[in-house]
Amino acid sequence: MTIRAGVVGAAGFAGIELVRLLLAHPDITLAAATSDALAGRPLAEAYPAFRGATDLTFSHHDQADLAGCDVVFLAVPHTAALAQAPVLIERGVTVIDLSADFRLKDPAAYEAWYKVPHTAPDLLARAAFGLPELTGDELARAAADHAAGRAVLVACAGCYPTATSLAAAPAIRAGLVDAAAPVVADAVSGVTGAGKKATERTHFCFAEDNLEAYGVGTHRHTPEIEQILGIPGRLVFTPHLAPLNRGLLSTVTLPLAPGARPSTDDLVALYRDFYADAALVEVLDAGSMPRTASVAGTCRAHIGVAAHPTVPAIVAVGAIDNLGKGAAGQAVQCANIVLGLPENAGLGAVAQPV
Amino acid sequence: MTIRAGVVGAAGFAGIELVRLLLAHPDITLAAATSDALAGRPLAEAYPAFRGATDLTFSHHDQADLAGCDVVFLAVPHTAALAQAPVLIERGVTVIDLSADFRLKDPAAYEAWYKVPHTAPDLLARAAFGLPELTGDELARAAADHAAGRAVLVACAGCYPTATSLAAAPAIRAGLVDAAAPVVADAVSGVTGAGKKATERTHFCFAEDNLEAYGVGTHRHTPEIEQILGIPGRLVFTPHLAPLNRGLLSTVTLPLAPGARPSTDDLVALYRDFYADAALVEVLDAGSMPRTASVAGTCRAHIGVAAHPTVPAIVAVGAIDNLGKGAAGQAVQCANIVLGLPENAGLGAVAQPV
Amino acid sequence: MTIRAGVVGAAGFAGIELVRLLLAHPDITLAAATSDALAGRPLAEAYPAFRGATDLTFSHHDQADLAGCDVVFLAVPHTAALAQAPVLIERGVTVIDLSADFRLKDPAAYEAWYKVPHTAPDLLARAAFGLPELTGDELARAAADHAAGRAVLVACAGCYPTATSLAAAPAIRAGLVDAAAPVVADAVSGVTGAGKKATERTHFCFAEDNLEAYGVGTHRHTPEIEQILGIPGRLVFTPHLAPLNRGLLSTVTLPLAPGARPSTDDLVALYRDFYADAALVEVLDAGSMPRTASVAGTCRAHIGVAAHPTVPAIVAVGAIDNLGKGAAGQAVQCANIVLGLPENAGLGAVAQPV
Amino acid sequence: MTIRAGVVGAAGFAGIELVRLLLAHPDITLAAATSDALAGRPLAEAYPAFRGATDLTFSHHDQADLAGCDVVFLAVPHTAALAQAPVLIERGVTVIDLSADFRLKDPAAYEAWYKVPHTAPDLLARAAFGLPELTGDELARAAADHAAGRAVLVACAGCYPTATSLAAAPAIRAGLVDAAAPVVADAVSGVTGAGKKATERTHFCFAEDNLEAYGVGTHRHTPEIEQILGIPGRLVFTPHLAPLNRGLLSTVTLPLAPGARPSTDDLVALYRDFYADAALVEVLDAGSMPRTASVAGTCRAHIGVAAHPTVPAIVAVGAIDNLGKGAAGQAVQCANIVLGLPENAGLGAVAQPV
Repeated sequence: MTIRAGVVGAAGFAGIELVRLLLAHPDITLAAATSDALAGRPLAEAYPAFRGATDLTFSHHDQADLAGCDVVFLAVPHTAALAQAPVLIERGVTVIDLSADFRLKDPAAYEAWYKVPHTAPDLLARAAFGLPELTGDELARAAADHAAGRAVLVACAGCYPTATSLAAAPAIRAGLVDAAAPVVADAVSGVTGAGKKATERTHFCFAEDNLEAYGVGTHRHTPEIEQILGIPGRLVFTPHLAPLNRGLLSTVTLPLAPGARPSTDDLVALYRDFYADAALVEVLDAGSMPRTASVAGTCRAHIGVAAHPTVPAIVAVGAIDNLGKGAAGQAVQCANIVLGLPENAGLGAVAQPV
Repeated sequence: MTIRAGVVGAAGFAGIELVRLLLAHPDITLAAATSDALAGRPLAEAYPAFRGATDLTFSHHDQADLAGCDVVFLAVPHTAALAQAPVLIERGVTVIDLSADFRLKDPAAYEAWYKVPHTAPDLLARAAFGLPELTGDELARAAADHAAGRAVLVACAGCYPTATSLAAAPAIRAGLVDAAAPVVADAVSGVTGAGKKATERTHFCFAEDNLEAYGVGTHRHTPEIEQILGIPGRLVFTPHLAPLNRGLLSTVTLPLAPGARPSTDDLVALYRDFYADAALVEVLDAGSMPRTASVAGTCRAHIGVAAHPTVPAIVAVGAIDNLGKGAAGQAVQCANIVLGLPENAGLGAVAQPV
Repeated sequence: MTIRAGVVGAAGFAGIELVRLLLAHPDITLAAATSDALAGRPLAEAYPAFRGATDLTFSHHDQADLAGCDVVFLAVPHTAALAQAPVLIERGVTVIDLSADFRLKDPAAYEAWYKVPHTAPDLLARAAFGLPELTGDELARAAADHAAGRAVLVACAGCYPTATSLAAAPAIRAGLVDAAAPVVADAVSGVTGAGKKATERTHFCFAEDNLEAYGVGTHRHTPEIEQILGIPGRLVFTPHLAPLNRGLLSTVTLPLAPGARPSTDDLVALYRDFYADAALVEVLDAGSMPRTASVAGTCRAHIGVAAHPTVPAIVAVGAIDNLGKGAAGQAVQCANIVLGLPENAGLGAVAQPV
Repeated sequence: MTIRAGVVGAAGFAGIELVRLLLAHPDITLAAATSDALAGRPLAEAYPAFRGATDLTFSHHDQADLAGCDVVFLAVPHTAALAQAPVLIERGVTVIDLSADFRLKDPAAYEAWYKVPHTAPDLLARAAFGLPELTGDELARAAADHAAGRAVLVACAGCYPTATSLAAAPAIRAGLVDAAAPVVADAVSGVTGAGKKATERTHFCFAEDNLEAYGVGTHRHTPEIEQILGIPGRLVFTPHLAPLNRGLLSTVTLPLAPGARPSTDDLVALYRDFYADAALVEVLDAGSMPRTASVAGTCRAHIGVAAHPTVPAIVAVGAIDNLGKGAAGQAVQCANIVLGLPENAGLGAVAQPV
């Protein structure tokens, strides 16, 4: 029996990528795609790539429709999920939330960083954090609950946290990293990460051939990364915008713990062991570093790791597609796990060889 | 029973796209991918996007291996197919040729444009031309032959001819176009069309943010387009290079036959009727013109057509992916037809919503 | 004595390019740069490239300030120049207008294409059309008037008309083109041509890696090109948008007059003779076609021309920077001429070798 | 009296940018531009942007010609300058070297990083390091020598060292940085930084829409940055390649010295004081971070600096054009200083507002 899914906020960049993935999913049927702005218009009108591929029409954001779904993806701005997730859960619908509303375990941290009260702390306490390679236990519990007929909520990791944490976690969890020193993550996102809204920043003539840093020390993904990696107050995270359509690269410098002095080969072996069961993470050979183009359009992460030859530090680099493994792809991966499917069901395609 | 396919010249841009499509094809198994330059190396080494997706290794171009295939795709430069196709056909292997060697029906035209003798005129006489929406009869005969156990050769149309002919053919075949006046096709290709070889022309710093015309009146696709459309000596074809990775747009201006004065709505209706059975061609609504981004990564063609408001002429625009419907995708489509599969088997995916 | 200039609408793309050119002009001082939206803010705040180069602040659009100028450039939307030019002229200020308001000699044509009444037909009758290589007489008269103390109005040609007309005019004026046949111009503009306003069309994620046709048969530059070239009702003009920041290429196909059969060498010689005195137009060698990157950031036009080998037609290609020779650069060139300076004063720089 | 300059290696990206700058320089005349590969061909043939701007022809690399120059710029690969600089100096010609051959003060470091012996250690001992804002004393001495009729050698800083050091030096020299902790510099270069040679890496189809790290811990600019900043063995430098034509951004994370806790405003004030006399460095306002597009085509550097809100660290970001302030522009700036001209002579232009 096929699984029925809905996407709320389907006209945004993450939402429409969810639509694309779900239309091709072997086990899930896309039952509803909502957009308040485009309700009533065929998807293929706003996104002509869908001509000939689907007759689906954007529907109003109307939870009655969504109640017939087994799973609903929320691709909405923060605070919108705070309002919608509890209602869906109440109706017995499992929710995969792509917003930031249920990511930070501590409601006070949410309030400090997002400047709004957290109105659903009980649900927050029960939410599973969705970064499958690092939070498998939480997702396994969610899968068990869902199998037992209880609606669950998965709060998917953000794009920067995904690439950064996948690159850093194996070294940190192995105890190789100095617990007293700062971790530096310089990460670069493509322009889809800035959203579909047309602004000066996303204008072709300002974004093309330009690279810039922004939000130094103030980006809201900072506490999320610190939470995932267990490095509270130790992260220097600087995001950048680059002229990529889709793609995100995070370069993480991790000072070594006293006494630790692994070789690059040791690190590659450690990382490969760590990700041995991960269908969507590839650890590159020693001496290779990832390219965002190789993962664009996919849900894969490519990780490169090196021991610095002179400074006692590890440099780990993670490449993902910010809309793929960084958003829609990871949401589908989380849904797969909760639904009892292989984690990479519908996510195995190579998007572009070049 | 699954169908076994081989790709010769799999490391080039068209070849590796064939690999990508065949790996995901529901009815075809990729048995061999050859590259003389990269033989012995895993595909995923040269093209890291395949990491985790295939363990295939490039093999030497050795026809003994290919003889076990039901169908072999030749993604080789012209003259190479002249040498290889007859040997494969002799061994009973159906060949889908992406080169120019068997496209021009008249060997003298081949010799005039390619400056080499045509060494296989008998095979040329039997080759089917592969542009399925326009040469369905030839492909149907090839399919019947293949079904009867006879190896066949399909000469797939080139990229510019595909987009240009799909845009122009319905009007010409309906007799709307002045048989005495020139047809003007200004077409623009992405840089993958210039091949994988690194040259000054394909250097990022020369290709980015640049548009240029080239080969005015001398491009080898000229006689091919004239042959498909039946307009010998009447085509003014000017190709251009644009900073696109994948994508090709051909804008064709067709002077109206005396007395003909169709409206844009008439033309859209005519085109939709013409392509009613074509699974991979979309005719856009009156007033819309195609975007290459909407077909990039796919085997679809988007066609827009308009009656000029003042000059008695039709403007028809075709958008394709030069590596998709313009090369590898069309080759798979031709193979599907010859093999008795739905023409769009393995070709239906939406590559990117944005 | 230095000449004082003002720019109205200085925050738009053409306006800020005017600012850039005038700041570096050896004979002109930029006295005022207006922007209603940014009035009071330093230029360098909105456009950080000006940091360290100017302390100028955007001023309110207040004609009192501009009255102290010897020349005012209007980089405003159509209808705005209709309102402002007469007031400035009345005050004795020479006006270089980049808008479309005074380009079409026939007010009825203006009203038909722009859907508003022309409220200054008397001024229109006296306006010089600013495409110096083709309207030298009009500009010479304007220069004489200005020298005699009479304020003059120059209506600068649009971007598409400039590239298209420079490519086509020598052949047409030499009587080589069939007066009964359509002229086809397929032209491609960079995204700055779509303006600074952030829209879905100018969004990096929709514009990058995309090429599209638009406004087939309906673009407002059509009557302007027909007027310049003297080919009323004979132009099929199809504009396209390409992922260039700055740059515009127009490929023009001109059917030959009966009996005319020039060689490419003949045409190159003819064109070089035609542009012998033009400091800013380069006619390329036979066999070469222009690249937009070679003229980006400059006021130069590069023209390539070829006789078609089989069809009796000329293919002429013009490349300009849509903001340079297509807007701000040409406006400065027109101002130079009216002010009695060398036409290329301040316009000779090579912007980028690569 | 005008100064005569020659450029050796004028056909490469840095060389041709030198040509562009020197052709527009008010006080320097470009007397010779050499390219062994293109000798005898007009510059404007290989680089059509120069059509109409210069009739210069590439000459053979023949030091007899260069001996008539007052100053020669060497835009050659490393080891080539080792051979050529001593000969020119011997002949009394001042040399501005853009290669790496005379940058590292310690010949043993050169040999360790470049794997060749340093054959001119005496000249190395006398070379001035060319990063004017940080090595003003060395350049002042060179200027005095040159004024006294002694030929001098300036070894211009590399592109990554320039951006990184300009961003980091004020904080380090003020004693704000922990002398025991690593400094992390993640820097991103445009593709011109990879040179004019066409390779798979510089192929448009591999470089566009791609970001990648490379040379982790092994890039040859590492010892150069450590030398400039006085942080031997403490730099973790990770270079990246981005789809920019020209542009380089270096994001430097500097751990604070014990007890130091400056605010962002303190840092901006410190940096502005440090660069108060620097004509080509702009320190942005608190809260702003630089964009590479704003300095592309110029010799300017834009610096942003921030105190991290939670971790005791400074984040400083430097943006330059890798061919401008990172190569040719800086070479001209060094030449200006040595020749007794204002440091920004010929370097003040705003290249592009957008």
